[in-house]
Amino acid sequence: MGMGGFWSTVLSLRTGHDESVTDVTRRCEDFVSGCGVVEGLLNVFVPHATAGVAVLETGAGSDEDVLAALRDLLPVDDRWRHRHGSFGHGRDHVLPSLVAPYATVPVVDGRIALGTWQSIVVVDTNRDNPDRSLRLSMLSQ
Amino acid sequence: MGMGGFWSTVLSLRTGHDESVTDVTRRCEDFVSGCGVVEGLLNVFVPHATAGVAVLETGAGSDEDVLAALRDLLPVDDRWRHRHGSFGHGRDHVLPSLVAPYATVPVVDGRIALGTWQSIVVVDTNRDNPDRSLRLSMLSQ
Amino acid sequence: MGMGGFWSTVLSLRTGHDESVTDVTRRCEDFVSGCGVVEGLLNVFVPHATAGVAVLETGAGSDEDVLAALRDLLPVDDRWRHRHGSFGHGRDHVLPSLVAPYATVPVVDGRIALGTWQSIVVVDTNRDNPDRSLRLSMLSQ
Repeated sequence: MGMGGFWSTVLSLRTGHDESVTDVTRRCEDFVSGCGVVEGLLNVFVPHATAGVAVLETGAGSDEDVLAALRDLLPVDDRWRHRHGSFGHGRDHVLPSLVAPYATVPVVDGRIALGTWQSIVVVDTNRDNPDRSLRLSMLSQ
Repeated sequence: MGMGGFWSTVLSLRTGHDESVTDVTRRCEDFVSGCGVVEGLLNVFVPHATAGVAVLETGAGSDEDVLAALRDLLPVDDRWRHRHGSFGHGRDHVLPSLVAPYATVPVVDGRIALGTWQSIVVVDTNRDNPDRSLRLSMLSQ
Repeated sequence: MGMGGFWSTVLSLRTGHDESVTDVTRRCEDFVSGCGVVEGLLNVFVPHATAGVAVLETGAGSDEDVLAALRDLLPVDDRWRHRHGSFGHGRDHVLPSLVAPYATVPVVDGRIALGTWQSIVVVDTNRDNPDRSLRLSMLSQ
């Protein structure tokens, strides 16, 4: 067992003016390394109402596939009651019900225990808000 | 770092006889305050097979938008193999695969570290079961 | 409060060559018992980019209903950019954005605090990969 503790930090994240899937795995790994912790649970949290966190394969088309699926499931049109922001922006507020703004993943032997093809990403369909925050928290016994 | 420990409690929740999004943020905050804990992870869990937990903006139309999206994605019709309860109730049992019955969120400086527009809600499409339970658990180092 | 610690193990899981919902509740319970821990948080994690973890009722049709809903929401066709594997396999890589590969659930009085009708399952739509891993981690104060 490692030295117990709780560490939490907020990072700035630029997701841009278009729908995006942003890989934050490296930043999560750096945070865990910086904690000097051997094992425990890492919580990845976006403090925003129009973004989500997911664990996906990136770089082989699935980033775009996720955004395409979300356009199909939550269309950019005028069906939404929430009417602030750009046309169809109401869908961005439904996004976190399907792609939750949190992930909790295990840390073992000083590393996030991801599978070979897994990356931690922020899914952001909101084109009105290019600058985001990402809170990383590590809880260890 | 705060005094470590684990606290868990079960609250009663009335979600009513219609589809609903129930804001439980205040009850989560009160629970965290009552633990007297400075930091750690809060787990919000509904011990039901036909409800989910989400973190959303409430009060600006998105509550209704989430329920409308779920009616579109999981229609109230006779396609479902699960045939107990009201017409179309099988969809309520698929709901937790998309809106999971748990959320784990960070607590920092004695408060849940939610963004400005985020609330913790229980999403309940089951019209047959108006009385629900909500388990809140706090783990701190 | 129980004796604190962190325990983590990787189990082998055969999900087979067809779409599947595999109940892993018993294996989770056995893991928790083996830790000898009274309370804390259990993290269930699949280290794969084409599977998810959910908490559902099993054995009453909902297993099939979840797979049917996912075929409707993420069709097995040629729309996907990710083009490795079987026809339509790109959908399997979108699955974890909707059914996340992790669940964190409370442990109280030495047991996972599931509701009467809840089971922990692995949802696997990938027909190309019948052998999977499941990582269980327990964090206790």
